[in-house]
Amino acid sequence: MSQEFWGFIKDPIYGYIRLTDVERRVIDTPAVQRLRRVRQLAGAEFVYPAANHTRFEHVLGTMYLAGVVSDSLPAQLTAAEKQKVRLAALLHDVGHAPFSHLFEPLLLKYMGRNHEEASEWLISESSLADTLKSEGFDAKAVSRLAVGRPAGQDKEFLGQIISSSFDVDKMDFVVRDSYHTGAGYGSVDVFRLIYTMDVLDGNLAVDATALPALESLILARLESFKAIYFHRACRAVQMMLLKALDEAEEDLGILHANTPEEYLEWDDYEVWSTLRHNPTSRGIMKQIAERKLLKCAYERTFYAKDEPPANTITKEEVRRRLEEEIAAEAKIPAADVGIDAPTLPTVPYHYAMDLGRLDIPIFSRTRSGEKIPQKITQLSKVLDDLRVFMNIVRVYTKEQYRTQVSDAAAHVFGEPPPPSNTLPY
Amino acid sequence: MSQEFWGFIKDPIYGYIRLTDVERRVIDTPAVQRLRRVRQLAGAEFVYPAANHTRFEHVLGTMYLAGVVSDSLPAQLTAAEKQKVRLAALLHDVGHAPFSHLFEPLLLKYMGRNHEEASEWLISESSLADTLKSEGFDAKAVSRLAVGRPAGQDKEFLGQIISSSFDVDKMDFVVRDSYHTGAGYGSVDVFRLIYTMDVLDGNLAVDATALPALESLILARLESFKAIYFHRACRAVQMMLLKALDEAEEDLGILHANTPEEYLEWDDYEVWSTLRHNPTSRGIMKQIAERKLLKCAYERTFYAKDEPPANTITKEEVRRRLEEEIAAEAKIPAADVGIDAPTLPTVPYHYAMDLGRLDIPIFSRTRSGEKIPQKITQLSKVLDDLRVFMNIVRVYTKEQYRTQVSDAAAHVFGEPPPPSNTLPY
Amino acid sequence: MSQEFWGFIKDPIYGYIRLTDVERRVIDTPAVQRLRRVRQLAGAEFVYPAANHTRFEHVLGTMYLAGVVSDSLPAQLTAAEKQKVRLAALLHDVGHAPFSHLFEPLLLKYMGRNHEEASEWLISESSLADTLKSEGFDAKAVSRLAVGRPAGQDKEFLGQIISSSFDVDKMDFVVRDSYHTGAGYGSVDVFRLIYTMDVLDGNLAVDATALPALESLILARLESFKAIYFHRACRAVQMMLLKALDEAEEDLGILHANTPEEYLEWDDYEVWSTLRHNPTSRGIMKQIAERKLLKCAYERTFYAKDEPPANTITKEEVRRRLEEEIAAEAKIPAADVGIDAPTLPTVPYHYAMDLGRLDIPIFSRTRSGEKIPQKITQLSKVLDDLRVFMNIVRVYTKEQYRTQVSDAAAHVFGEPPPPSNTLPY
Amino acid sequence: MSQEFWGFIKDPIYGYIRLTDVERRVIDTPAVQRLRRVRQLAGAEFVYPAANHTRFEHVLGTMYLAGVVSDSLPAQLTAAEKQKVRLAALLHDVGHAPFSHLFEPLLLKYMGRNHEEASEWLISESSLADTLKSEGFDAKAVSRLAVGRPAGQDKEFLGQIISSSFDVDKMDFVVRDSYHTGAGYGSVDVFRLIYTMDVLDGNLAVDATALPALESLILARLESFKAIYFHRACRAVQMMLLKALDEAEEDLGILHANTPEEYLEWDDYEVWSTLRHNPTSRGIMKQIAERKLLKCAYERTFYAKDEPPANTITKEEVRRRLEEEIAAEAKIPAADVGIDAPTLPTVPYHYAMDLGRLDIPIFSRTRSGEKIPQKITQLSKVLDDLRVFMNIVRVYTKEQYRTQVSDAAAHVFGEPPPPSNTLPY
Repeated sequence: MSQEFWGFIKDPIYGYIRLTDVERRVIDTPAVQRLRRVRQLAGAEFVYPAANHTRFEHVLGTMYLAGVVSDSLPAQLTAAEKQKVRLAALLHDVGHAPFSHLFEPLLLKYMGRNHEEASEWLISESSLADTLKSEGFDAKAVSRLAVGRPAGQDKEFLGQIISSSFDVDKMDFVVRDSYHTGAGYGSVDVFRLIYTMDVLDGNLAVDATALPALESLILARLESFKAIYFHRACRAVQMMLLKALDEAEEDLGILHANTPEEYLEWDDYEVWSTLRHNPTSRGIMKQIAERKLLKCAYERTFYAKDEPPANTITKEEVRRRLEEEIAAEAKIPAADVGIDAPTLPTVPYHYAMDLGRLDIPIFSRTRSGEKIPQKITQLSKVLDDLRVFMNIVRVYTKEQYRTQVSDAAAHVFGEPPPPSNTLPY
Repeated sequence: MSQEFWGFIKDPIYGYIRLTDVERRVIDTPAVQRLRRVRQLAGAEFVYPAANHTRFEHVLGTMYLAGVVSDSLPAQLTAAEKQKVRLAALLHDVGHAPFSHLFEPLLLKYMGRNHEEASEWLISESSLADTLKSEGFDAKAVSRLAVGRPAGQDKEFLGQIISSSFDVDKMDFVVRDSYHTGAGYGSVDVFRLIYTMDVLDGNLAVDATALPALESLILARLESFKAIYFHRACRAVQMMLLKALDEAEEDLGILHANTPEEYLEWDDYEVWSTLRHNPTSRGIMKQIAERKLLKCAYERTFYAKDEPPANTITKEEVRRRLEEEIAAEAKIPAADVGIDAPTLPTVPYHYAMDLGRLDIPIFSRTRSGEKIPQKITQLSKVLDDLRVFMNIVRVYTKEQYRTQVSDAAAHVFGEPPPPSNTLPY
Repeated sequence: MSQEFWGFIKDPIYGYIRLTDVERRVIDTPAVQRLRRVRQLAGAEFVYPAANHTRFEHVLGTMYLAGVVSDSLPAQLTAAEKQKVRLAALLHDVGHAPFSHLFEPLLLKYMGRNHEEASEWLISESSLADTLKSEGFDAKAVSRLAVGRPAGQDKEFLGQIISSSFDVDKMDFVVRDSYHTGAGYGSVDVFRLIYTMDVLDGNLAVDATALPALESLILARLESFKAIYFHRACRAVQMMLLKALDEAEEDLGILHANTPEEYLEWDDYEVWSTLRHNPTSRGIMKQIAERKLLKCAYERTFYAKDEPPANTITKEEVRRRLEEEIAAEAKIPAADVGIDAPTLPTVPYHYAMDLGRLDIPIFSRTRSGEKIPQKITQLSKVLDDLRVFMNIVRVYTKEQYRTQVSDAAAHVFGEPPPPSNTLPY
Repeated sequence: MSQEFWGFIKDPIYGYIRLTDVERRVIDTPAVQRLRRVRQLAGAEFVYPAANHTRFEHVLGTMYLAGVVSDSLPAQLTAAEKQKVRLAALLHDVGHAPFSHLFEPLLLKYMGRNHEEASEWLISESSLADTLKSEGFDAKAVSRLAVGRPAGQDKEFLGQIISSSFDVDKMDFVVRDSYHTGAGYGSVDVFRLIYTMDVLDGNLAVDATALPALESLILARLESFKAIYFHRACRAVQMMLLKALDEAEEDLGILHANTPEEYLEWDDYEVWSTLRHNPTSRGIMKQIAERKLLKCAYERTFYAKDEPPANTITKEEVRRRLEEEIAAEAKIPAADVGIDAPTLPTVPYHYAMDLGRLDIPIFSRTRSGEKIPQKITQLSKVLDDLRVFMNIVRVYTKEQYRTQVSDAAAHVFGEPPPPSNTLPY
């Protein structure tokens, strides 16, 4: 009964999104409404001023696409399964801390949780669980589905709709991030991809005829990674915010939340306000307010076919040691050197992570309709080549130290190509 | 020298916007950067979830369009004049309080200023003035131009570029609000309008050949007014926020700011956080967090050719008295009845205000090139008719009081058409 | 069985359009395929160079929208009714002669048919009828529905989906013409309009909550009329083509077609080629090839609340006499004067025609769900005012005769405002 | 004087395009106006129904982009040089025969010219030459520039604006083809590419900061190649049209044109009409009219790092022999077997052709502003990998022969992956 049509909500990407009554109830919980104040791409607005979209519209879009997949899969889903997949998609990001991915290392350090685990926690233990139960849904099952790991009797492919190399989450954010940044790398024919999906041996799979659409999804992510997520100035802001968060840690109650309710008290607004008032972090926030950003003094790209070569940099102690080494050589305080790498958990969407395991099931159809599994790397030269792991090391510092840090970093990491900065904003 | 090309900034509407060095300096002041945290349409996101755009990208867009007008006007502007117009456009909204127009009555009540006067104040007395001076600009003159009232030697039409019935401010927000809401009423051929502009007797004027573009600008504002700015649920949120602001007034330091610096400390983030923590306003904020919005129990539209008929409603004491009358009849607390009307200063863009004085100078060109002034209302039947003043009275209350308030309001204001709510989100 | 899903076709406006097997069969008939070579807006490409879209994509889009209406109407349609409506929408323009509306007066003169009657004829008597019958449809019933006049047991509102003041035909062409011309007047929220439609007393009706969308549809038509359909240069080309058609009439077999098959032999390609080779019409075609277009020497607009004031001009003999009068006074050959008016059957979409009978059923809903009929002109001041009939009289001539024809026409029709031509292309 | 501003023309992609007086004169010649009746992508409309755009709007767009490059290059061009580059861009496709690339092999066979040579011929010997001369331009120089091979004193990089791996021609068609097909692979940030261009050692070069934009241009071409230009059904129509052209060759006067004027008599309309009336080709045209298309019975993709492996197939006699071999084995007439490969001159835009010679000059900038040449394949792993040459062999036949031709082709070319066709339209 509660799955009856309730009304529409308007989205600039997909137009009118139909909501059922239960969806409206879940959307109107404080947990989901809070996502209105959690930016999708914290920091990116310093490069793309219009990139002010939030997790809220992203989860609505993800729910919408999950519904389109559910409706068009030849594998007949029951109405209850369809509703469950849509709800799981709606809730998949509910655990994000303020500033989304930026907060990730703090979540891990202080709460021992990543944002997906936080989503599971909130769905199964906050008032969301009550709302779901009162509508006849098993909150635990929805929480598992929301992070792509269906439990109990739920079919494996239902989870893959929400979490896989070609899931509706990625489809939505690639298109949406492009729309709001204006960066122009989000032209992906997601509906072609969706309309040709099928289930093969229990797994969600793509018809080989949609290969161009699949390639363009993955390439759009690659280009978006370069132009948005790992843009130098975006990362500069993010590194500054991260430092401010670290400095104001004691005031950030979210890191010490004992209950879902305490966790949900925190959004971008609370955190930003806290950082501006905390006596230690206030200095960084003033620099951000005047747009005095860290500068990239050094950048170098590494490639490796098999494994990330520089993944030791992901370890905080290694990074700290290298930062000290560079600072010593540059004769500046260690606090003024920051090493960045796309494998850090603060980098939201590292395409290479998924490409490393290019496991997308793909099939061709014989004329009799039989589905034959294919190896995607054999069908697509482009995707095969993209499996190469690209790692980037950057060294940031204050504007006045740029030259000496550039030299020092070159000693440590080797001579890089000269930096270029025609379009720096 | 400082007017040299500095770089580009990317906007989803216009693509790359070229910045001069002086523009970058002004953009990087805390006063302009603060606009990143002042929503363009506070409350509208509760109806259009993607409407999270801010004053920051709006002022960049307005500056861009001001530049296009300056460059294309046959009246030759000097490079310095062009730069001054762009800077004035960039700064025209710098005085907006958090939540933009929503704060307007509080600004008036506590500071005796509207947002335009706040812009003038900030431009001429904050550190913005120093930045402008150091680049060779008269801060006072820029502040006057920014509110459309050029002073000294500045030509009258320069102000009309920024503030008139067809200014670049309106062109930008109509298009931008449509883009981010997805409402679909912003398809206006602004470049046709701009490319045919000229100066007639010292005033900015439009070529009659661009009449369809002009009509569509004004009609888009009318439709946007109905579908966005004065949407029932948008206004419900805004009325709730306004009440919360009133209740937390003492904690809102901005209302008691003595210096530009104190004023500029406040943005949406600070205010939202304050409202959530203030013991009185917290209750309303909790309702908003659960999307328990006020409901419109009554709505009626009045027309008048000459004058707003219900403009007494704009007076707070009249409104309060009517609210009490309705509440008494409905036998509920007066605090649970709220009257809304589009003439209130919290309604951002009331098309009728401008249409009342449809003063747009328009001209035809003879074959010899002579410009003949025309009366716009003779050329355009549509615009002539739109001069009719439409006023709307609405009565809001809590969901549980809807029926009795509906009845009571009908007694007070007359029998309305039955309300309808198929697309309420 | 034949109503099974067959596949998708991609449209730039709506994305993937699902086709049933029977739709594919009908699309693949020569009658529908021929629409690929019948321009939607013959002549408009001389002003908007990209306006090369054809009736083919328009009928696909119309079919798509008809399907969306059928699916979303609360009045439950059977699967067979939905399929019939889609087929009727697909075939509604199948009778258009080459150059669409431009050919209309010749169709009337030589065949005694307008294009709607031609559609009926072709659907019920060409091989289309066989295809429809073999799929179980009554060709006669489909032909009636296609022109909006359902017969037999078909419900009245089914016809209104395809032909009324707010039909799917108009929705599609307003949006599509804007997309391909780039004119920018087609931003209409058609889905809002569709999703709120209902059946009231057997008639298709619009919910009052969708009034802004309805207004914007009608206003977009008005602006498109001015900027595209009745653009001076568009009409100049159309008048030249019409003259060429008249001159080459004997070679245009379509005008003398005895069978549907003979009629269907003719498309834009055949006609254009014929006009270029015919010794009489070749001269005009050469002028078009060098873009030596007729010039508008005179233009005047008339208004009337009740009735078209200048509708006598629609009569060919009256028009000829006035042309002769002007030519005599200008001392040039009568053949070099052409009078144009938007009431002529060659003007494709005259908004005023529909506005004159603003009969759109509209309703409000009480809180209990009851639908109350409303008068649209009471709800919408804009639409009420637009009922005023605007008529335009133009006089065209060759460039060299412009001045004297301008003067002569002023004698005949009264002093007009001076013409203006800044954006003439 | 003739380079004065004349007016605007509206394009759906770029908005208003400013025209100078001389440009308008050149546009109004029959040679350029004829491009209105030469489709950009003949055959593609059978898959993407809205793909009816023509060479006319493409050359206007190319001229526009050439102007943007000219204006933004730091290398100061004179006003005369800028005008010359725009004119050359405007005329670069003037030599295209009807159906654009499809006619290419016939041009070569009967006239010994490709379309670029035809452009040179027409620019320097038709009435275009007179128009250019009367405006003070050297027609011969413009004709050379139009095909990217500047002569005399014209700088090398001027030609590269119009013809190179990243020229304005490619930028325009990638974006425009995507707009009109709706295929969705044309999201390229062309303005970023353009705004960072510079001249390096006399050659047009791209700043390394625009690498993502450059990659996306090249990737968009790759995806467009798969989804549009080399789409199975597009190619089926093209192969049928090509056969019809061959059969009606004697009636196609363009192939036997002695003068530019005779050549320019022919457009898509003339040719289509001729093919429908010629007794031999009429049969194929009837099949197209009923959409009875050839079917792809076999497809196989080859890769090679160094050289096209199957380039012998490009030779007509080799192809004929293989067709006969397959036909013999399949026991059907040789005329019913057609081999297709993307290296044939009828395939318009074969990305691999350019990628084979990935010679794009690219540079980084040191902090002091010095430009350092880079190797693009070292900066871009994606582009390096794309240099691999992909060749595709397809065998087409009539629907009824599909199985036996599939088997026979497998003998000749090796076992292919099974064909798939979910989205065949």
